[in-house]
Amino acid sequence: MLKDRNCGEIDEKLIGQSVTLAGWVHRRRDHGNLIFIDLRDRTGLVQCVFNPEQDSETHHLAESLRIEYVIQVSGRISPRPQGTENRKLATGAVEILVESLVILNESKTPPFYVNEDVDVDESLRLKFRYLDLRRERMRNNIILRHNVVTFIRQYLNERGFLEIETPILLKSTPEGARDYLVPSRLYPGKFYALAQSPQQLKQLLMVAGVERYYQIARCFRDEDLRADRQMEFTQLDLEMSFVDEDDMMTLLEGLFSSLVENVAPERRFNQPFPRLRYADIMERYGCDKPDLRFGMEIADLSDIVAQSLFGVFSGTIAKGGVVKAIGVPGCGKYTKSQIEELIETAKKNGAGGLVPISLGNEAGVLANLTMEHVKSVAAKYLTLDQIQAIASRCEAQPGDLILIAAGDRNRVNAALGTLRTELGGRLGLADPNALAFAFVTDFPLFTWNQEDERWQPTHHPFTSPWEQDLPLLEAEPGKVRGRHYDLVLNGYEIAGGSIRIHKTELQRKVFQILGHTEERIQALFGQLLDAFEYGAPPHGGVAPGIDRVVAILAGEPTIREVIPFPKNQAGLDLLFGSPSEVSQAQIDAVHISVKTDQ
Amino acid sequence: MLKDRNCGEIDEKLIGQSVTLAGWVHRRRDHGNLIFIDLRDRTGLVQCVFNPEQDSETHHLAESLRIEYVIQVSGRISPRPQGTENRKLATGAVEILVESLVILNESKTPPFYVNEDVDVDESLRLKFRYLDLRRERMRNNIILRHNVVTFIRQYLNERGFLEIETPILLKSTPEGARDYLVPSRLYPGKFYALAQSPQQLKQLLMVAGVERYYQIARCFRDEDLRADRQMEFTQLDLEMSFVDEDDMMTLLEGLFSSLVENVAPERRFNQPFPRLRYADIMERYGCDKPDLRFGMEIADLSDIVAQSLFGVFSGTIAKGGVVKAIGVPGCGKYTKSQIEELIETAKKNGAGGLVPISLGNEAGVLANLTMEHVKSVAAKYLTLDQIQAIASRCEAQPGDLILIAAGDRNRVNAALGTLRTELGGRLGLADPNALAFAFVTDFPLFTWNQEDERWQPTHHPFTSPWEQDLPLLEAEPGKVRGRHYDLVLNGYEIAGGSIRIHKTELQRKVFQILGHTEERIQALFGQLLDAFEYGAPPHGGVAPGIDRVVAILAGEPTIREVIPFPKNQAGLDLLFGSPSEVSQAQIDAVHISVKTDQ
Repeated sequence: MLKDRNCGEIDEKLIGQSVTLAGWVHRRRDHGNLIFIDLRDRTGLVQCVFNPEQDSETHHLAESLRIEYVIQVSGRISPRPQGTENRKLATGAVEILVESLVILNESKTPPFYVNEDVDVDESLRLKFRYLDLRRERMRNNIILRHNVVTFIRQYLNERGFLEIETPILLKSTPEGARDYLVPSRLYPGKFYALAQSPQQLKQLLMVAGVERYYQIARCFRDEDLRADRQMEFTQLDLEMSFVDEDDMMTLLEGLFSSLVENVAPERRFNQPFPRLRYADIMERYGCDKPDLRFGMEIADLSDIVAQSLFGVFSGTIAKGGVVKAIGVPGCGKYTKSQIEELIETAKKNGAGGLVPISLGNEAGVLANLTMEHVKSVAAKYLTLDQIQAIASRCEAQPGDLILIAAGDRNRVNAALGTLRTELGGRLGLADPNALAFAFVTDFPLFTWNQEDERWQPTHHPFTSPWEQDLPLLEAEPGKVRGRHYDLVLNGYEIAGGSIRIHKTELQRKVFQILGHTEERIQALFGQLLDAFEYGAPPHGGVAPGIDRVVAILAGEPTIREVIPFPKNQAGLDLLFGSPSEVSQAQIDAVHISVKTDQ
Repeated sequence: MLKDRNCGEIDEKLIGQSVTLAGWVHRRRDHGNLIFIDLRDRTGLVQCVFNPEQDSETHHLAESLRIEYVIQVSGRISPRPQGTENRKLATGAVEILVESLVILNESKTPPFYVNEDVDVDESLRLKFRYLDLRRERMRNNIILRHNVVTFIRQYLNERGFLEIETPILLKSTPEGARDYLVPSRLYPGKFYALAQSPQQLKQLLMVAGVERYYQIARCFRDEDLRADRQMEFTQLDLEMSFVDEDDMMTLLEGLFSSLVENVAPERRFNQPFPRLRYADIMERYGCDKPDLRFGMEIADLSDIVAQSLFGVFSGTIAKGGVVKAIGVPGCGKYTKSQIEELIETAKKNGAGGLVPISLGNEAGVLANLTMEHVKSVAAKYLTLDQIQAIASRCEAQPGDLILIAAGDRNRVNAALGTLRTELGGRLGLADPNALAFAFVTDFPLFTWNQEDERWQPTHHPFTSPWEQDLPLLEAEPGKVRGRHYDLVLNGYEIAGGSIRIHKTELQRKVFQILGHTEERIQALFGQLLDAFEYGAPPHGGVAPGIDRVVAILAGEPTIREVIPFPKNQAGLDLLFGSPSEVSQAQIDAVHISVKTDQ
């Protein structure tokens, strides 16, 4: 080895010893005759001192050092002179008195500072990713990602799970997202698809008697890219036999709580993870993956305002609608234009409008509220008692703003849910240190697709319906509940899971309800239906997204920050400039031709 | 959980306890009124007894059980009646007296026996892979593979390596094997390629300062398939900074010896792993990945026969050729037609012919050999002393066969090397329990490609030349040695590795020697050359093939047996029937059209 220790390990205990280190020139400072180099490797920094009185030749060579040069130094570990210690640095009490220096490689001046945490243009970071990854923040993210995956594997291995690799080149089964196609050279006109997930394969592994399977699996979906969606992503793919929902949620809670305790012990979270019903959280948060780090729950005012003189409210309720609201803390002073903007947001998200009630500029006690503090178009139609009841229901105080929506239940929930998320973020209500895990259960098995006028699976077609809802399957599919359990965290769905169907006839019936012809069922799912005929055990699974989990634990806003070589929003890998043109011979080999006239 | 223990864990210590198990009906035997079921799960078998006197209803239900039904049983753990114990089974001293039975799923009669180790048609095994994987042999292979990968990760994690995922969708860089192409939807006429290996990416990670990287990486090459080559394969991809060849070989020897000790402790191997030079092993074994479990080394007879009266030998040497031989134990009795077949093999592999010398039918002492025992066309031209010297050089005894080839050195080595491999296998000279690891070093950096009349890299273009051979680089590239270290095991190259070039100018020069234009160098490798300008550390790496390592440790003849869902030799996944036709809309989305007139 060109080094016998790492920079970050050098401390007072080693004073007096000789050491050889190798790494990058992080900083250089000259003080009189002395040259000070902060030497960096993956483990940290250590100060190296070149003194011309020690060795003039080495000192002379050190004069040529510039940042990001790769060097090897040998010298003696020494205490820093009193008063020059750096308490912020792990190695700040010591320095290396350099006796010899080898320049292993030079460096051009980097296009941005590697040694400072400054904002750098995104495309520059992607183009010079090998420099971006040298920065402390990115290095920590990469190490955290390693620690997350290592911990997950260890946790599952200890519990009898087998990691099994499943193929990536599969038959195209166009369900859900768009497949990436790979033309076959041996079979002209036919295509492989890149696995969107190992779903059917892991179910086959259950049929194969594996019982406990997992894989840190690469998956591919040809969807339009966003800052937060990559062409390829990584999920913890997991499946177990002989389990029910409770077993799976217990496993997941154990896995994720132990994970946080081990890789991010400074983060705060509650246990047990709440288990919430889909229908309830839609009423309370207006979305199926609420950020539970803050309250601001959606309150139902229907009983309070049903008999009020305000026609918008009473009329809505008379027509079977609902009146619901959120209380926004400290926003009683919002201006007309600020409120207009919120109304626009609500309208964009399905509400007919929004009735705001301002409880004034100043904090106070609700019992002392007078009509003078209240500002609202509805004020003159409502009594003080009614307003106090509304405020109380929304947990609003004087100084707060109440946003009320009236109308169809689903639209009202959706609009207020969006406002809750928007305002919670704007007001900083969520503790950035907190991790609010929760399970969401009792999803409907099917969702009606208005556009195509057909039922579609709420999650995927392999989810088992509730036993007690089976009689409704054909007559009222919309009322059938599925054996789902999603895990949400800080406003993200980090894992979707379910107990699966394991009998051929039930699986076939579900495909039929989804509108598939028998021919299509055979073509897409024939192998699974066949396999179920040969002793398929009851089983269930889950697929947490690794990229998202790491991003949340790293405190990063997008998953791109925790992927070593991401593509930009246009799907371009700036480092590699892909995709690229290929030769005509390559194209001919796979029996395709390219449409260039588009 | 539908079970509270695993079948394989039930033993005498648990006698008297109640237990609930779930699994598959492995065997059923009826004895009078009693029904015996061997219940199987992933951990093993346990005998379950249904007694009508215990519970007639449960017994009645048990009558319907057939093999591979999935069941749940509850009952009491009891010692087997004296004389009925099965010492071959871990659970053979006990049985479950069943009190209740639930049939979780039924099974059709499987197309082959899951409970017996019988030969089954390969295509049937692939079509019903979920049943094939239930068989003990395949289950053990899958578990072994898990153990291998788990051990490797643990070993490297403990040594400061970070596992980092690199992208699979890359720019096409047509070097070496054929790329799988993935048409881009967003960039009409452009293609991604599936990664053939993370080579350039892992070198960029070294430039990024990661220092110690590994990945259990999926790789893709669109080559013609064989029993032993899959469309996608898995390698341990590994790279380190600040190392030389010795550091890398030390790491690999530690990793592989610890691996065997942990996952296959019954296997025998020698340490330290021999480090052999390429030129030497070509002389001694005639191939660069010799099976070192047996001797039969190629002996050079040139000095013995240079002055002999046999013109084939003396003439060859006079013309600058060599005369070499192998001694084949116990084959002095080979018939004329058996020997003819060996001569044919030698000719197919480049030799002009073969001169056999039989040392007779019977074993004996070489000193007692007389000309009467010797049978050969060359016998009358050679003295007994010469024949004894030849035999001694080949370590041949009376009763053995000596196969001599004369001619060009490389052709003679190649032909005798092939015969050595062929006869070693036929005679069973290799101990199937032995693992003969060795490193091969000092490969030439370049190999002359006769067909294209250009130099090509012996391994890949990123390997660093020997420092002392740099002056030869332009004038005599064929004499430049590379800093390679391959790891061979039992006749397979299981890992190719090298210290890499880390300076732009040297890397560019190597690309030029390989005949690349500057334009092509920029297009294919520009990002790496650019990266080397910004402080690239000295680094090296290696990429052991996981599939092959597991197959050797499992004692399996092909890698297909250690891959859960392999494709057959025609590239077809019989379970999924891929590749498949896709819809015109899918084809249109990626701006290609299919040539159907081929």
